[in-house]
Amino acid sequence: MRVRTDTIGRVAVLAVLADDAAPVIAAAKGFRVVTGHVGTMDLQKVIAAIETAARREGFINTEYAEEHALYHATIEALHGVGRGQLALGSVLRTVALRFALVRGPRMPGDHTTWLAVALYGTIGQPIKGNEHEVVGLGVSHL
Amino acid sequence: MRVRTDTIGRVAVLAVLADDAAPVIAAAKGFRVVTGHVGTMDLQKVIAAIETAARREGFINTEYAEEHALYHATIEALHGVGRGQLALGSVLRTVALRFALVRGPRMPGDHTTWLAVALYGTIGQPIKGNEHEVVGLGVSHL
Amino acid sequence: MRVRTDTIGRVAVLAVLADDAAPVIAAAKGFRVVTGHVGTMDLQKVIAAIETAARREGFINTEYAEEHALYHATIEALHGVGRGQLALGSVLRTVALRFALVRGPRMPGDHTTWLAVALYGTIGQPIKGNEHEVVGLGVSHL
Amino acid sequence: MRVRTDTIGRVAVLAVLADDAAPVIAAAKGFRVVTGHVGTMDLQKVIAAIETAARREGFINTEYAEEHALYHATIEALHGVGRGQLALGSVLRTVALRFALVRGPRMPGDHTTWLAVALYGTIGQPIKGNEHEVVGLGVSHL
Amino acid sequence: MRVRTDTIGRVAVLAVLADDAAPVIAAAKGFRVVTGHVGTMDLQKVIAAIETAARREGFINTEYAEEHALYHATIEALHGVGRGQLALGSVLRTVALRFALVRGPRMPGDHTTWLAVALYGTIGQPIKGNEHEVVGLGVSHL
Amino acid sequence: MRVRTDTIGRVAVLAVLADDAAPVIAAAKGFRVVTGHVGTMDLQKVIAAIETAARREGFINTEYAEEHALYHATIEALHGVGRGQLALGSVLRTVALRFALVRGPRMPGDHTTWLAVALYGTIGQPIKGNEHEVVGLGVSHL
Repeated sequence: MRVRTDTIGRVAVLAVLADDAAPVIAAAKGFRVVTGHVGTMDLQKVIAAIETAARREGFINTEYAEEHALYHATIEALHGVGRGQLALGSVLRTVALRFALVRGPRMPGDHTTWLAVALYGTIGQPIKGNEHEVVGLGVSHL
Repeated sequence: MRVRTDTIGRVAVLAVLADDAAPVIAAAKGFRVVTGHVGTMDLQKVIAAIETAARREGFINTEYAEEHALYHATIEALHGVGRGQLALGSVLRTVALRFALVRGPRMPGDHTTWLAVALYGTIGQPIKGNEHEVVGLGVSHL
Repeated sequence: MRVRTDTIGRVAVLAVLADDAAPVIAAAKGFRVVTGHVGTMDLQKVIAAIETAARREGFINTEYAEEHALYHATIEALHGVGRGQLALGSVLRTVALRFALVRGPRMPGDHTTWLAVALYGTIGQPIKGNEHEVVGLGVSHL
Repeated sequence: MRVRTDTIGRVAVLAVLADDAAPVIAAAKGFRVVTGHVGTMDLQKVIAAIETAARREGFINTEYAEEHALYHATIEALHGVGRGQLALGSVLRTVALRFALVRGPRMPGDHTTWLAVALYGTIGQPIKGNEHEVVGLGVSHL
Repeated sequence: MRVRTDTIGRVAVLAVLADDAAPVIAAAKGFRVVTGHVGTMDLQKVIAAIETAARREGFINTEYAEEHALYHATIEALHGVGRGQLALGSVLRTVALRFALVRGPRMPGDHTTWLAVALYGTIGQPIKGNEHEVVGLGVSHL
Repeated sequence: MRVRTDTIGRVAVLAVLADDAAPVIAAAKGFRVVTGHVGTMDLQKVIAAIETAARREGFINTEYAEEHALYHATIEALHGVGRGQLALGSVLRTVALRFALVRGPRMPGDHTTWLAVALYGTIGQPIKGNEHEVVGLGVSHL
């Protein structure tokens, strides 16, 4: 199966769907990609894991404006994960998520810079096996 | 790049990410898949397009229970699309979405039947080009 | 079965659950009760039906403060009906609801005046039979 | 006063409104009912109390599908309790709730199986007496 | 610049915008004003700080009805601060807020009594300087 | 009374609170300000009025990135207006709002560019006089 890697959202989602993100990253010409994973019942730990990876990898600069973009894209992606409630442990559920952060144009021909956060993994009760898949994507201008 | 097609969520999301869903459907052993697309400023038209496709293809039976499952999975997927507001035209935005409906086990070894709805496309102002990508996934038991 | 009718919420909910509200109203000493029903895909018509009944029956006075209380109690009750989205037709669903408005103390011994709005009926697809029950209760100070 | 006990939602709500649920349960032919109560500022404790009662009483089987149905019906019922925010202690309020879990057809003539969760009690400030009644009802297919 | 101080909302917002609330309070004829400030990652501490100030200053009486009005106006003001999520630390953000509580008519000629809660300050990451301004206003009848 | 005009949020909110925005704009050194007003029961008309004013005044450039920033700041401001529901006519209420769009640094010493949208006016029933004040502020990076 083939999926295009010339738009920021597809790159981000493919990078979390694939067990090995390296070929996705290699195919995503013109995009900068950072990946990682986090398992937790604390929503803030998902946000913190993403911010830590972004800073450690120099994915965003040190101005608040870029962190603000990353924060909003992350919250948007979490809406896809939470589907109605931005909450995990407080509604008795836990997640195991991969994340991908992508920076670049929205699509071929776009001369502005955008940032995408994709999340993929499972959500469920804090009981092994009682979970199903979730996906989220957030996109912000830079 | 390779993405596994042995879990219901990955099958659904890949089927909407790929320009041609046929190879994804062929690779998704043990799952039933229905795909389609819809462009609109009316949220209810997204839901109606999905229900119409499901009924026409015999994806769900005629009992309300299965339609209820499909409705809830669709609303969940729309949370990923709306990211905070389940609204389109009323907040001055429009979507062009592909959808995929998948029926089968959650993962290898699951003996129960589930239903997934994936959405992928663009959201934006009602001005050509002023849009970015969105993804949503909803999963319900049957 | 016996349910107490000495608290404002129980009076309101019983009055909508019972096919005949008259015995509930008769048993609810110290409370003023107004009932009605509405079927619609337009959320605003539920609110309008309740306001119209309240004004016609002199349930609230002509100051905005009392209408404000009724509005907020109605919106709260609609949260129980909508369960996550305050929307009907825009998410392709319709309701057939009975409503009860109750005015009086919260409970025996309360010397302040409160207002309760209860809703009971069905919600579902705009297809006969594809629906299930819903309940909502809102309570505001006066 | 008389309230019909032939629909799943009325059975569930009556079972929490009545100080003694036994006559309601006896009148609810064809339904399985489990009741309990919980007082807390932690939302997850409401969900956990309901899941624990359901498992202990064999109300749901051991597959995740049934727990998923119970979870979603519980979250829906909590929307009636929270009326806008699915949160208790984090918005400085506490609940004392009775719950009823009901399993059976939606109504006479329905041949599918559904699950209802009803909640009734009080919500308020963590100060004795500063509270009012709340009701919630969630319904899911099985 | 001149801003009118004859409506309850303008008085409340001006009292939090100004570094010195005293001239605003002096100009706000016919209104009772209480001010304070709070910095926290715990949403409930904002609510608690406001309730504590209101009780200490005798801004509300000892009946639950008035506390209920204050609680609802506070939650409404927090919607302006949270802009989509009523959450702080759980979504990894912190606030430093001034609050003003105002009691009186809505506007000249209104003979009923209302209560307004205004919030102004900054929200952001728990990193000094990574924050921007927020404002919220809630209004309830008494 | 004096309010500082050296931060983007205070400039935006003062410009909508004042009956005459000109002195506020004159005092707001280093900020670009556009103001306007809109009265409607259609949420999308508020958003459209703001976008139209922004384009007409050259407040944003013609790239989607800046319009995206304006859209998100507007939606955030509308959360303060809607306080729980991003809806007007569909929940039977109407608004009369002034808006101010401000562009510049967040505060003295900030070298990045931000955009603020402030809203102030009244919300209420579609009956003259049955309304109270609302305020909203949204802030986005550019």
